[in-house]
Amino acid sequence: MHAVVATEPGGPEVLAWQEVANVLPGPGEVLVDVVASGVNRADVLQRQGFYPPPPGESEIIGLECSGRIAALGAGVESWAIGDEVCCLLSGGGYAEQVVVPVGQCLPIPAGVDLVTAAGLPEVACTVWSNLVMVGGLQRGEWLLVHGGGSGIGTMAIQIARLLGAQVAVTAGSQAKLDTCMKLGAAVGINYRDEDFVEVLRQETAEHGADVILDNMGAKYLARNISLLARDGRLVVIGMQGGVKAEIDLSALLRKNASVHATSLRGRPKQEKADICAAVERHVWPWIATGLLRPVIDRLVPVGDAAAAHRGLEDGTATGKILLIH
Amino acid sequence: MHAVVATEPGGPEVLAWQEVANVLPGPGEVLVDVVASGVNRADVLQRQGFYPPPPGESEIIGLECSGRIAALGAGVESWAIGDEVCCLLSGGGYAEQVVVPVGQCLPIPAGVDLVTAAGLPEVACTVWSNLVMVGGLQRGEWLLVHGGGSGIGTMAIQIARLLGAQVAVTAGSQAKLDTCMKLGAAVGINYRDEDFVEVLRQETAEHGADVILDNMGAKYLARNISLLARDGRLVVIGMQGGVKAEIDLSALLRKNASVHATSLRGRPKQEKADICAAVERHVWPWIATGLLRPVIDRLVPVGDAAAAHRGLEDGTATGKILLIH
Repeated sequence: MHAVVATEPGGPEVLAWQEVANVLPGPGEVLVDVVASGVNRADVLQRQGFYPPPPGESEIIGLECSGRIAALGAGVESWAIGDEVCCLLSGGGYAEQVVVPVGQCLPIPAGVDLVTAAGLPEVACTVWSNLVMVGGLQRGEWLLVHGGGSGIGTMAIQIARLLGAQVAVTAGSQAKLDTCMKLGAAVGINYRDEDFVEVLRQETAEHGADVILDNMGAKYLARNISLLARDGRLVVIGMQGGVKAEIDLSALLRKNASVHATSLRGRPKQEKADICAAVERHVWPWIATGLLRPVIDRLVPVGDAAAAHRGLEDGTATGKILLIH
Repeated sequence: MHAVVATEPGGPEVLAWQEVANVLPGPGEVLVDVVASGVNRADVLQRQGFYPPPPGESEIIGLECSGRIAALGAGVESWAIGDEVCCLLSGGGYAEQVVVPVGQCLPIPAGVDLVTAAGLPEVACTVWSNLVMVGGLQRGEWLLVHGGGSGIGTMAIQIARLLGAQVAVTAGSQAKLDTCMKLGAAVGINYRDEDFVEVLRQETAEHGADVILDNMGAKYLARNISLLARDGRLVVIGMQGGVKAEIDLSALLRKNASVHATSLRGRPKQEKADICAAVERHVWPWIATGLLRPVIDRLVPVGDAAAAHRGLEDGTATGKILLIH
C-alpha cells in the first residue's frame, strides 16, 4: 500500500507519498480502507522527530481517520466488511489502510458525511476525556480554552456549552474569535494584545476559571495558575510554550487547585476504548441532532500532506484540516 | 478567659498563657470548654507569623480540641450542654473556651478518652479529605507518605491500610520507621541515608507510587513526580521544603499524572462540615472497633505550650503532641 512517510525529521517538505508494507488485522482488530485522515498538532511534532509513536505502534503518522472496514481480525463480531467507521488511532492514519482495535472504531454520527467524520475522533475523545473525566467540568463553571480556534478548541467550546459551562477562549485573530463566539464562547481574548488573566478576572467578577484547557505548557503555567478559581483544575494537553517552568506550590495550595497533564495517545488500549464508548454515548447524539457541529477548515489531497502541515503550522486554520484519499 | 497567645512572631518562647477576651457562640455554633488541644505543624508557622488565620477567624492558635459543650448558639439542636465533643477548628484551640460551628463538632469515638480525642479531628479530616476525596486512593494502590511518624503520617498509614492500599513511608529515624511498620506500612525509608525514589521503585517492581502525600513541597517536587506511577496523584499538604520549584510538565504528561495542593484550614465552612461528616461515618467506626488507634507522643500542660512546640520542631515526636488544660 501507499502512505505518507516522513523521510527524515524536518519541515513539511520531508513528507512523501510512498510505497510501504501492507498491514493485517490481528485478533480484536479490523482493517480499514482509509477515506480521509485528520491532521493534528501531534503529527507535526512526530514529523519533526519530537514525538515518536508508543512502543509497538505504527511508525506512520496519523491519529484519526474515517473509512470502510476491509477485513476483520479473529473474534471480531461487532463490525462487518463494508461498514463505515471513524477511528481513534495510535498512529498509521496517513495511509491507504490502517489496522484499528475494535474499541477505537466509532460509527459515523448521523448527519455527518464520511470525509468530515475523519476529523472527529481525536478531538472528541481528547475534549471529552480532559473536560469531563480529568477536569470534572460542572454545569455553571467557567472553562478557559487556549487556542479556541483549533480543532480541539472548536470542539471544546461546544461540548462545554452543552455541559452547561460558560466558556472563554484565547485566539490569535479576530476571525478566529468570531468563530468561537458563534460556537458559544461568552468571552473571546486576543492573546496578541490582551492579557487573558486580567480580562477573564474582570469578566468573571474575580472568580477566575474553574477549568483551563491548555496547549501552551510552561509559557502559560504561572498565569494559568494565577487565574484558577478555588478548587480549579489546570489541564495541560500541549506544550507549545515549552515543558519546564517554575511553579509556586503555595499559589496552588491557597486555592486547593490542581495541575494535570495528559496525553490521549499514551493511554492504554482499554482506556482508549472506554473513552470512545463515552464519546459515542454522550457526544455522537449531540452531533446527530445538530447541537454540535464539526468545524472543518479545509480538505487537502493526501499526496500533498506537506500543504496540510503548513496550514496547521502557519496558524491560519480554524477547525480541522483533513487529508482526502 | 485564658489562652496561649503568641506575644510576637518568633520562637516557642513567645507563647504565653494570658487573659484574653471571652467568646460567645453565634447562630449554628456552640461554645466548648476545652479539655485538651492538639498541636499541629501549622501552629508553629502561625506562631512564627507565616500563617495568619483566615479572615474573620480567631487570632488564637489551635486547629483542634476536645471538651464539653458549655453553651449553645441560636438554632443548635443536635448537641446539648455537657456533651463531650472533639472539634475541627479554624483557630482558637489553645484556649479555655472556643466557639465551633456545629458541623465541625464530632462525638468522641467509642474506646477513646476525652483527652486523646483532641488529637483526632485535624489529622483524620486532613488524611481522609486528601487520600480519598482529593487523591482518590484505591484498593491495591501504592501510597507513599512523607513524614510517616508524624500525627498525619501515623493516621495516613492506618487509613490507607484500611482502604486496602499498600503503604510506604519516609521518616528520619529507625524508631519512627519501626512505629510506621507496626501500624501497617510495608516499606520504610530513612530519608537521611536512602533515596526514596530508588527504594520505592525497586520495592514496587518499577510501578512507583499511585498517590503521594507530601509535606515537603518544592524540595521533593521533581523526585515525587519522577516516582509517580501512571495516572499518579501527588498531593502536597505542607511545604517544609519550600514553595517554588521547577516542574517538568512533560514528565507529568507522559504519566497522565497530576499535582494537587490543599489546605484544610482554608476550606469553606460547608466543605469542612462535609469532611467531618465523612470522617464520622467512615473513620470513627474503625476507631471504635479498635482497627485504627490514635498515636499520641506526649501530653504537655497548656501553660507550657512552648515545650510542646519545641517537641514538634526538634523532630523527636512520633504521633501527636497534646496540650492538657
